[in-house]
Amino acid sequence: MRIVVALGGNALLRRGEEMTAENQRRNVRVAAEALAPLAREHQLVISHGNGPQVGLLALQGEAYEKVGTYPLDVLGAQTEGMIGYMIEQELGNILPFEQPFATILSMVEVDPDDPAFQHPTKPIGPVYDEEDARRLAAEKGWTLAPDGKGFRRVVPSPKPKRIFQIRPVKWLLEKGCIVICAGGGGIPTMYGPNRTLHGAECVVDKDRASALLARELEADLFVMATDADAVYLDWGKPTQKAIRRVSPEALAGFGFAAGSMGPKVEAAIEFATRTGKTAAIGALADIVRITRGEAGTLVTPQVEGVELYP
Amino acid sequence: MRIVVALGGNALLRRGEEMTAENQRRNVRVAAEALAPLAREHQLVISHGNGPQVGLLALQGEAYEKVGTYPLDVLGAQTEGMIGYMIEQELGNILPFEQPFATILSMVEVDPDDPAFQHPTKPIGPVYDEEDARRLAAEKGWTLAPDGKGFRRVVPSPKPKRIFQIRPVKWLLEKGCIVICAGGGGIPTMYGPNRTLHGAECVVDKDRASALLARELEADLFVMATDADAVYLDWGKPTQKAIRRVSPEALAGFGFAAGSMGPKVEAAIEFATRTGKTAAIGALADIVRITRGEAGTLVTPQVEGVELYP
Repeated sequence: MRIVVALGGNALLRRGEEMTAENQRRNVRVAAEALAPLAREHQLVISHGNGPQVGLLALQGEAYEKVGTYPLDVLGAQTEGMIGYMIEQELGNILPFEQPFATILSMVEVDPDDPAFQHPTKPIGPVYDEEDARRLAAEKGWTLAPDGKGFRRVVPSPKPKRIFQIRPVKWLLEKGCIVICAGGGGIPTMYGPNRTLHGAECVVDKDRASALLARELEADLFVMATDADAVYLDWGKPTQKAIRRVSPEALAGFGFAAGSMGPKVEAAIEFATRTGKTAAIGALADIVRITRGEAGTLVTPQVEGVELYP
Repeated sequence: MRIVVALGGNALLRRGEEMTAENQRRNVRVAAEALAPLAREHQLVISHGNGPQVGLLALQGEAYEKVGTYPLDVLGAQTEGMIGYMIEQELGNILPFEQPFATILSMVEVDPDDPAFQHPTKPIGPVYDEEDARRLAAEKGWTLAPDGKGFRRVVPSPKPKRIFQIRPVKWLLEKGCIVICAGGGGIPTMYGPNRTLHGAECVVDKDRASALLARELEADLFVMATDADAVYLDWGKPTQKAIRRVSPEALAGFGFAAGSMGPKVEAAIEFATRTGKTAAIGALADIVRITRGEAGTLVTPQVEGVELYP
């Protein structure tokens, strides 16, 4: 099988952990241990998040005042390098030396007319008090939105239209490479005047970009590895139940759009509907069992309605 | 022909320029204009330096005190992402849309027993006064060496033994991709206990790594693009003469090792000697003429002794 695995943020950094290189590397090592059995049996493509990493680079850039902070496309490219390196090295330390790897820098195209540019929603960076928030909005033209007791910068999160490097990724998969790509949702770019491609000041949702990647690669299975072991109905209530298998239509009917599972559910529905293949949401530690249909939530047109775990 | 071009630091940032993303992008655009005609006619592989970029990331990391500065391998990976992105995008804006590109994250292996680890020589980051230099040496275990009126951190610059991603680079060249790789001399790594690969706190010379890349790719021509339009005998004297063509043996006899041309001359000699092919040193603006043998200094076993420009 050809499998695309999108690693959630917790595969790189656990909640509350300090964002040192050592902590990230230790977490990546755990992720690599979980992925290694999959890599031995299947064609494997790995994508990953980069939210906290982009946030840190932006803070470091702000702290060093002699050079202005780099735009989000450039920071995204930096994180693809850093995270791709860690994943490739740690997975390489587990698999046979002969296994070829490639981390492919990935740009995604977004539409300048995407309505997301009128409604920035994705929070990045730290929480500011009201005074700082007002100052930053004036100085930098940022949009700041209330977040808990303070304010955070919010940026647009438009839909990915295209992943430019899809052909090299395919060619390397055909040669037996494990490919790491589309990290952080891909480097956001858009066409300007004269069909010139340039960076876009936004972030693309990693799960959306990974769904597009999986679709364009004609993957047999698309897995979103996250904190939760499955998608739950009635989450947090005494009646909560984990979904075992569900049709995209039935899943769409449950209305997850607003919750934290929203983007993953949306990406799974889109992939399953457009390809007829299976998308899965579950825990990284369960990933081998997920590929066998024994764990996680499988979103597949091959069932009708919903089957729950007992 | 298959051509490996190593872009010098000035292709990304000119002396004295502020290291903004905009300045780097503008310079990369100029480099892309120079490289485009080459890409239309030949198989092209591009490597590049990263000294100032790694220096800036380290300074930004130091300035933001909440999280410790990342090690040199991780910073190197970040710069491969950033610079590869800019080169790929700017060259992509000039060449036909159908032209495939790939930036391949590249790790190089160095030997923990390389004598360079006993004698750090490569300066990185800013100039410190004596008091700061003493404090940093004590606090961080850095080696600091006199540099002009102050002190700079120096790190080891060991020889590259292997580029791990050489197979994916070859495969993509065979498919017609323009490949960007081995940036900054590659991400420095070494084997530790149990044959586990990990990062190395050093930097690998970009020209040495590029020579290894060109050799392993069996390139027909290896070009180091730099500030100077050629290698000169008696540089800076009234008798100075630009070298047109020279055998590796003759070039080795001139003793450039200590000068700023030293690493380039050494890399050119090694490539030409070991492959029988031609290495060239010259200005990026002349690169098409260099590939035709009409500009720059060609180091080739096909001549005896040295031919000077009139």
